[in-house]
This record gives sequence, structure tokens and C-alpha cells, in this order.
Amino acid sequence: VVRIGVVGGGQLARMMIPASINLGFDLAVFAEEEGSPADLAVSQVGNYREADELEAFARTVDVLTFDHEHVPINLLEALVEQGHKVFPPPQALELTHDKIVMRERLAGLGVPQPAWFTVHSRSDWDRAVESLGGSCVAKVPTGGYDGKGVRFVTEWDDISDWISQGPVLLEQRMNFTRELAQLGARSSTGEWATWPLVETRQVEGVCSEVLAPAELGAKESELAKGIALKIAESLGVVGVLAVELFHTDEGIFVNELAMRPHNSGHIFTELSATSQFEQHLRAIAGYPLGSPHFVAKCGVMVNVFSRFDHAAWVVGDGISSRVKVHDYQKAPREGRKAGHVVAVGESQSPLLASARETARKLGDARYDD
Amino acid sequence: VVRIGVVGGGQLARMMIPASINLGFDLAVFAEEEGSPADLAVSQVGNYREADELEAFARTVDVLTFDHEHVPINLLEALVEQGHKVFPPPQALELTHDKIVMRERLAGLGVPQPAWFTVHSRSDWDRAVESLGGSCVAKVPTGGYDGKGVRFVTEWDDISDWISQGPVLLEQRMNFTRELAQLGARSSTGEWATWPLVETRQVEGVCSEVLAPAELGAKESELAKGIALKIAESLGVVGVLAVELFHTDEGIFVNELAMRPHNSGHIFTELSATSQFEQHLRAIAGYPLGSPHFVAKCGVMVNVFSRFDHAAWVVGDGISSRVKVHDYQKAPREGRKAGHVVAVGESQSPLLASARETARKLGDARYDD
Repeated sequence: VVRIGVVGGGQLARMMIPASINLGFDLAVFAEEEGSPADLAVSQVGNYREADELEAFARTVDVLTFDHEHVPINLLEALVEQGHKVFPPPQALELTHDKIVMRERLAGLGVPQPAWFTVHSRSDWDRAVESLGGSCVAKVPTGGYDGKGVRFVTEWDDISDWISQGPVLLEQRMNFTRELAQLGARSSTGEWATWPLVETRQVEGVCSEVLAPAELGAKESELAKGIALKIAESLGVVGVLAVELFHTDEGIFVNELAMRPHNSGHIFTELSATSQFEQHLRAIAGYPLGSPHFVAKCGVMVNVFSRFDHAAWVVGDGISSRVKVHDYQKAPREGRKAGHVVAVGESQSPLLASARETARKLGDARYDD
Repeated sequence: VVRIGVVGGGQLARMMIPASINLGFDLAVFAEEEGSPADLAVSQVGNYREADELEAFARTVDVLTFDHEHVPINLLEALVEQGHKVFPPPQALELTHDKIVMRERLAGLGVPQPAWFTVHSRSDWDRAVESLGGSCVAKVPTGGYDGKGVRFVTEWDDISDWISQGPVLLEQRMNFTRELAQLGARSSTGEWATWPLVETRQVEGVCSEVLAPAELGAKESELAKGIALKIAESLGVVGVLAVELFHTDEGIFVNELAMRPHNSGHIFTELSATSQFEQHLRAIAGYPLGSPHFVAKCGVMVNVFSRFDHAAWVVGDGISSRVKVHDYQKAPREGRKAGHVVAVGESQSPLLASARETARKLGDARYDD
């Protein structure tokens, strides 16, 4: 029996449980605290930043993977040196830890991305702004997520507080028509499979909805797949890779990367023959990948924020019996991702209306009409 | 949070885990031994025939349900008297414990079934055989499953050993063209939903394959749904009800009943918007039922017997990436159900070929060409 170890007990680890049940793998989770979303599979509770705790967990499993990007790379490198399998490997994972490293490596691969500068000082700022124009996007290179650590900036004072902590990534503000995500998976044997491209919708920097497949010309769709494959192979990614893209009149440009199951891929659980969680486990275990083909024509995913209201669900008013629900069993908190709903079928517009109404009843849904 | 308790740690309890993860229910399993298929959710190990052990488990959950039919009815009645929710309720569940009780109750409902007799003695036998003809089916009323406790008989000596243990059910041997199963679910609030009828194929009395939807005229399909509804409502079934049917030139006749997720419904996990495991949990928790509509045109399920060979899977030869696998993580044993595979799509014939080949590689597949 393959024993998979997941560092982090969040909803991504939680959603690996159904996949491991089907595949006949054992799943063990190293959570930070009791009562995490992945509680059922938790085998150890502690601090993943402590080398000895992380090593103790690694010794109980065959392959180590992640629910989040926060494990220090040097600890993972030490595990690899000790002979543990860590997927994605630390040298690939590093790109998702540091956005400046990501931009440098993607530049080296010749992948289209927004113009960018590393800003250490006022003089760097002046040079960058002259090139990027008056309005740009500043990002703290490490630790940001869901819109945190990202600002639209026009003046030095907008980032001077960050600069005192370290370098800041300054990027061209893209005039995009849509945001897209290309997800794929690369196995430890080198096999590669991609799902069709999806459209992602953000509200205040947080993914709120996903529509699939994204409407895009064949040429740009192929380009997106090619970018994902180049990144996966060049960096030796193992597991699911999510490439978030801006779609502009000038083409597509890489926004962010994730090397694990990603919010933009939750829709595949119902829409594809193979969920991203199953594919991730297959990939890191070295099993043949499952087919990513769509079982329905199209689908929508709507995040449920703040709470997941079972009382409203039991009443059932406005909650479609055709919409599939995923409750992460998190304590209620304003703006937190509490779950998501998915609807698949023939036509996106009625599916979206139905999924939004269901999400609104269960918690908060966020969208621009 | 709704806390569901399942008595029995087999594959049916195992496959309730993914559903509980999605729905945001807590699942607890009372298993007979360590290392059961439902191991991940096991909260108690012991003997469900011991009233105090069963009661201790019931006190930890909101609703009690079952992986099998072996819990003594009197113990369940005692739990209900103490105020525990037990679904399906003991008075319904009793029919699945005793085949003679089932025949009596179905006769009272006017449901079409094979002609039958209860045989206590040689004189009963003579009278029954005179009426049923020379060849009939004898069944031990309690404890039989998967073809065990069932014999084709022609002579008194064929059942005399059984008679010494108690009464035997003697049934007309049906000249059926196909076997079918009508599955539905009734919630604790009385809501009722049915999946389309499926065709089941048995080899040596054990379900080996399921094809869905079954090819049957609209009139007989409606009749099958009507029979299931009548049984569910009359008996107060709560949860999934599986009605196994013979299809003959004279119509359809009830063979057996199950009041839990059933092998014939495994196909719905991929083929329907709502799996039988999700529907069962919704029904017993009193939640609105999910839509049972099919997300693909058709599908096939093939059981994997004896073993589930991960080494062959890793090699991948002959194992379709489009076939979904379910490994129950049972110790290998000749003839035991070790898992199943499902393929869904547009046309049953290629799906069946592909699923059979995959099942053959993973373990033993059983079918008549």
C-alpha cells in the first residue's frame, strides 16, 4: 500500500481523502492543530517548521506532499538528502515560495509574463516606474496569498513600508480581459496530462468563481498547455501544476504558479473523469495518470465564503439538488473560504445562476453582475 | 455537524467516507476488527452483537446506520426505545434479515414476486413441489449473502440438512431473461428519489457486472419504480433501498431487498450526479436528497475479485486511464470482492470491454461471453 503524507491539514488535504479512498492509498496528514478540515486523516499534530517533527512525519510515509507552500525549502532539501521522496521536489517548489525567484526562472524559460522589476531601493523604484508606467502591481515576494501581500501602487510611499522588510516585486499592471488557469499534472515517471483551460474570476484578489472550459481560440489554448508543459518539465515538477494566466489583447501572460491542487481545479472533481486530487496522488505515487477528459460539456464552480450554513441547507429553499456541495468544516469567519459548489451540464449561464443561488444560501457568494 | 455512525467496517462504510467529506458530515465507524476497509473512519472496534458495545457507539453519534444486515433486530429496537435514531428503522430492516418475513410482507403489499412456500417438514415440501414444479430454489431465511445459503433443488434430500436447523424458503425458479435492480432513497422527512433502473449480472450467485441504464420499456420501468416506492413507504424505509428484480416474459418480480447502499448502485458514483453513498447519508440525516440524474449517457461497473494488484496497475498495461478504480484495501482471498471499476460514456459495448480488461489486470473479473 502506498502511504502518502500531506503537510498541512487544510481543505486541499481534506479533498485528497476521497481520492485516496478510491485509489486504495493510505493518507496521513501532518496538521498544525486539532480539528483541521483534514481531521479524519490526521496522524500527527505539530509544527512543520521544526525539522525533527517534519522528519518524524516523513519517516511514517512513502511520499511527502503539501497542502500549502509554507514549509521551509531547506528542511525539504534535508529530507531529500536523507532519501525521502518529496513531491513536488524542493527545487521546483521554491518558485511558489518566492515570487522574485519565480519571475527570474520564468524569464529564463522564455515564458510570456508581465514586465517586472526587483525593487530594493528608491532608485530601483524610479527606474522601474519609468519603464512600467505610472500604475503597477507591487508584491511581497514570500508569504502572500489570496490577495494578501499585493497592492496596486503609484507612488514610492505605497511600498516604502514593505521595502524596509526586504525586496519587493514590481510588475506591469496588465489590462486583461479575463483570467485563466491551465492545470496539468506530471508524474514522477515523467507522464504529463492537462485538463482543458478554465476561466477564473477573482473578487478583491480572491478566486470566487471558475468556469470551464474557458472560451479561447485553439492557438492560445495550445500556447497555455505549452507553457505549463515547459514549466513542468524544466523545473521537474511532480504533481499538479496550476498556471494562472492573464488573457489580454496581446496574448496570455503568466500571473502565478501553484504546485499542488488549486482552487481553480476544484471543478474537475465533478467535470472531469479525474479530479485534481486523484491526479496529484497518482502523479506523486508514480502511478499512470487518469484521463482528464470532461464528462459533461461544461461546468461552474462558486466558492462559499464566511460560513457553511447547514440549517439553510436542511430547509433547502433555493438550494439546487443538482449542485454538488463541498463543505470544508471550518469555523465561520468573515471572508474565509468555507466551501464550494459545482454544477455541470450543457450550458454555463443557467448553471452559474443555480450555483450562485446555492452558494448564497449556504454562505457568502462574491461576484460582479 | 451531523455525526453519522455506521455499524460495520466493510467497503460500504468505506465508500461513505468520500460522501461525508463532501457533505461536511462527521462519520464514525464501529468495526469488528482493526484494519477494516473503513479503517480511516473507525472510532470503535468490537462486537456489535453485544448490547453494551452497540449502545456505547450509538451514544457517540446522531444517527446510526449500517454496512451490513447482521445486527440483531432486538438490539436495534432497544436503541430506538432509548431515543436513538436508527435508519433504516428496525421494523423495515427486519425484512432484509429474514427472507421468509420479506416474502410475507411483500405478499401483503401485493408486490409481484416468485411463488413461494415456507417449508418446515417433508409434507410442506411435497405440497410446495407439487405447486412449484420439479425445480425450485431453496433459501436459508437468515444469514445468506452472495449466493451462500441458496440452492437449486429438485429432491427432499437437497434440503433435509437445512430443515434440521429451521424452516426453509422454497421459491419458484424464475425463467428470467435478465436481472435488474431498482435503487432509490427515502429520507427521514419522507422525500423519495430513484435512479434509473440498472441491469445486474451474476456469476454463481454473486454480482459481477452492472450496466446502466437497463434497457426496458417505459411501462415496466415505471412499474419497477412503483414497486420500490410502495416498499419504501409501506415499510417506512429511510436511506437507500435496493430492489433486485427478475425480468421475465411475464413481467418483473422481486428477488431480494437491501436497505443500504448496494453493489448494484456503485455505478452511480461516476454515472449519477449523486452517489448512493451521498444519498444514503442525506436521507438518514434528513437533508434534501441530491438529484439522481445521469451525467453521462450510460455506464458499466465490473467487480474485481480475489485481489487488487497495484503492481499491475503501476505497469499500466491494459488498464484504461478512463476507467475509475475503487480498491477496498482488503486482504487477498480467492473469490472475495476486492474492488470495482466503472466506466461511463456514450456506448456500453466499448465501455464494458475496457472495464473488463482493466478488472482482469487488477484482479479476477467474472463474466460469461
